[in-house]
Amino acid sequence: MIDSAQPTALYEQVAHELEKQIHSGTLRPGDRVPSVRRASEQHRVSVTTAVQAYLSLENRGLIEARPKSGFYVRVPRRLQFLEPKTSRPSKAATSVGVASLQSRLADASQMPGVVPFGAALPSPELLPVTKLNRMLASIARRSGARGLSYDMPSGAETLRREVARRSLDWGTNLTPDDFITTCGATEALALCLRAVTKPGDVVALESPTYFGVLHAVEAFGLKALEIPMHPRTGMDLDALELALKKHRIAVCLTVPNFNNPLGSLMPDEHKRRLVDLVTRRDVPLIEDDIYGDLHFGAERPRVAQSYDKSGLVMLCSSFSKTLAPGYRVGWVAPGRFYEKVKSLKLTSTMATATLPELAIAEFVANGGYDAHLRGIRRTYAEQIQRVSHAIEESFPPETTITRPSGGFVLWVGLPPNVSALKLHERALAEKISIAPGPMFSAKQQFGNFIRVSCGHPWSSAAERAIGVLSYLVKRMS
Amino acid sequence: MIDSAQPTALYEQVAHELEKQIHSGTLRPGDRVPSVRRASEQHRVSVTTAVQAYLSLENRGLIEARPKSGFYVRVPRRLQFLEPKTSRPSKAATSVGVASLQSRLADASQMPGVVPFGAALPSPELLPVTKLNRMLASIARRSGARGLSYDMPSGAETLRREVARRSLDWGTNLTPDDFITTCGATEALALCLRAVTKPGDVVALESPTYFGVLHAVEAFGLKALEIPMHPRTGMDLDALELALKKHRIAVCLTVPNFNNPLGSLMPDEHKRRLVDLVTRRDVPLIEDDIYGDLHFGAERPRVAQSYDKSGLVMLCSSFSKTLAPGYRVGWVAPGRFYEKVKSLKLTSTMATATLPELAIAEFVANGGYDAHLRGIRRTYAEQIQRVSHAIEESFPPETTITRPSGGFVLWVGLPPNVSALKLHERALAEKISIAPGPMFSAKQQFGNFIRVSCGHPWSSAAERAIGVLSYLVKRMS
Repeated sequence: MIDSAQPTALYEQVAHELEKQIHSGTLRPGDRVPSVRRASEQHRVSVTTAVQAYLSLENRGLIEARPKSGFYVRVPRRLQFLEPKTSRPSKAATSVGVASLQSRLADASQMPGVVPFGAALPSPELLPVTKLNRMLASIARRSGARGLSYDMPSGAETLRREVARRSLDWGTNLTPDDFITTCGATEALALCLRAVTKPGDVVALESPTYFGVLHAVEAFGLKALEIPMHPRTGMDLDALELALKKHRIAVCLTVPNFNNPLGSLMPDEHKRRLVDLVTRRDVPLIEDDIYGDLHFGAERPRVAQSYDKSGLVMLCSSFSKTLAPGYRVGWVAPGRFYEKVKSLKLTSTMATATLPELAIAEFVANGGYDAHLRGIRRTYAEQIQRVSHAIEESFPPETTITRPSGGFVLWVGLPPNVSALKLHERALAEKISIAPGPMFSAKQQFGNFIRVSCGHPWSSAAERAIGVLSYLVKRMS
Repeated sequence: MIDSAQPTALYEQVAHELEKQIHSGTLRPGDRVPSVRRASEQHRVSVTTAVQAYLSLENRGLIEARPKSGFYVRVPRRLQFLEPKTSRPSKAATSVGVASLQSRLADASQMPGVVPFGAALPSPELLPVTKLNRMLASIARRSGARGLSYDMPSGAETLRREVARRSLDWGTNLTPDDFITTCGATEALALCLRAVTKPGDVVALESPTYFGVLHAVEAFGLKALEIPMHPRTGMDLDALELALKKHRIAVCLTVPNFNNPLGSLMPDEHKRRLVDLVTRRDVPLIEDDIYGDLHFGAERPRVAQSYDKSGLVMLCSSFSKTLAPGYRVGWVAPGRFYEKVKSLKLTSTMATATLPELAIAEFVANGGYDAHLRGIRRTYAEQIQRVSHAIEESFPPETTITRPSGGFVLWVGLPPNVSALKLHERALAEKISIAPGPMFSAKQQFGNFIRVSCGHPWSSAAERAIGVLSYLVKRMS
């Protein structure tokens, strides 16, 4: 029997037991795993807990479900490549220059016939295209004048209510009045940055981080101070603490749940400490939770905002990674900066398009959003596994690769003398889009890293593309 | 017979002849005007020209169409109030502070039961609600994955093509590749400002001007240099020329076609000179043409951009005043700043919502956009007349009032000791929203002016509201 006094969740302990059996060879590849009912008896846990344990193992690629037959041990594809090391960004704040690379990546994402390892876009095949468009159609027909009218900030009440309802799952308890809807998380982040900075100010952010944030920092005339990142646990808080002492930092920006490109997950104790650190110095914290719903572990991770008692955390997200990038529906819960953000929204876009907001609200309320999320989480975890495996089979042995805890991107370290920017050029000539590492750093570090998006289903074209990439990498190394 | 060697358009001469007959009493109120065919024979012009002449008279409120019966002379409502004088803004560049007033006006526009003289919003009753929402619904059902996918800048090609086609009517000849779609004209203006300024820069703009522009100037840390405005012909170009000599101006911003709040129309020769002035000094010009399609005269006025040979003019507009504010579809033709604006769009909203763009494109292509525009132009001209008349009948005699050439707002000068800000407060307490004059000036001038929006159909509630306003004004003066 499992000791339920342990701090880790019960299902994790069950999963751990099964994992030991797999690794020890008690359960071999292809073996049928005990039924859920059987497992619940063996470990004296509820059926729900056993199911959670199995889903967790499935998400990690150790077992797989076969229709109407149960769970089986998968051929273990143990990654042999090392993970990248903790990043070592420059300790000085710097101006940024990633704009042109972002434009080129956006352009590549629109080119027909290009293998889409570049932009971090979910494949439309994984999105509820028909259902969502039908909901929008139905709302458009019913809405009358409402659909044509401005949804002045703070945005559609139905949507804010649905998001507030879901906030319980993130360990927090926001109300509809805490939210302002935005044109994607992009607008949310831009508004937050503008609300708490003036040009020349220093923004502490993760290294590597999403290039869109770096581009915004550049465009608003801010300086980036890059904080080292551990590939599994995210921001190095000792380094942040030091930086907060040494520099006059206007705002911190972090992606605790599945940093893009690392897929790291900041442990809860770190989140608490992070909020502590910024609270003590009264520095606002922008938390980007856009990947939070795409966890591979069984539980939805908390947001750092859940530890915030002083309204310093500005929580941002959108439905662009889970439902509909093209609907442009995001939101921000800007804490004590609510009025400022609401006012700035009038100068940015005035309002968010009404009907897409209402359609997203309807889908989240009645469209089976949770079932949909379960499905794409499994698919992304699997695609991450497949792409990792393909890279491992063909890339040079010095290659390093992340083990993401969520999201759908991989961060791949190539041999030191390979230029990711050159590889990006050559790959694009072969109709393969990848995101070169320097895009993810204000100082254009990570010269030998690439980000590989796994948002699209595995295919023979993807397989060939990995082959071509490995050929190019080997020729360059 | 009319002398066609005259420089004014033929139809204007026909209209002028008829106007003389009305003013001289040859045609009296209630008289039937000669049929279009008859007029074409009398004046030896084509039927088309005669129709143009009649529409022009109708738009100016001199004649009215009665269904299946023809045109009749209207009861002449000659305005007795004077027009406001040319504005006299401060000659120094100043920081701006209108944010909170804009927020309050936006809030008031959402309040149920408030008489909407405040925000310059078209009434949903005047918009093609059912048709447009049906088009969106149909496109949403047909679009599949396209509807859910990003429309990366520059935005939907179908929409850019339709706008480019229409640009011929504005005296210019832009191609689909000249445009970038935006989340309303708000985003277009913000992107243009950001593309050519850095904080602390001076923006030359009209006084009075739309408070949204002033709010953006404030939010981006810019300084406003206000140029005097003539209530009929718009920007005082002598004053602009002087300002361009004396100040280091980063960008000019102008609304040549129907400045909000004045409704002024810059004559073509002025537009040419304006472009000349900025070209000689290589100063970019942001042209906001959001009201351009709402002309009361028979012809669609040109854009100043049509005189631009060096790509300095950044032309902005949207469909928010003519079709659907809540769809958030606007555009910019940024001239030589195209790449910069496209790149900044990635930091602002990433993309414009796809389906609303496609629906607007469909309506403009196949929905009878021109017929719709003819209808709302007539309605707005009529509403402007009615509200003007009601104000004239009840406000104190020192009141001044504009004679707009297009758009749907009136700018009303109250007796000098009436505080528009206080009137705004007291009116809101009576559930009447108006826009106080200081919102339209960086220096919060126009303390005794109000803007009255005529975007909503005349009603007994509107009539009562004008009565209440006049009562409040008289008590305060």
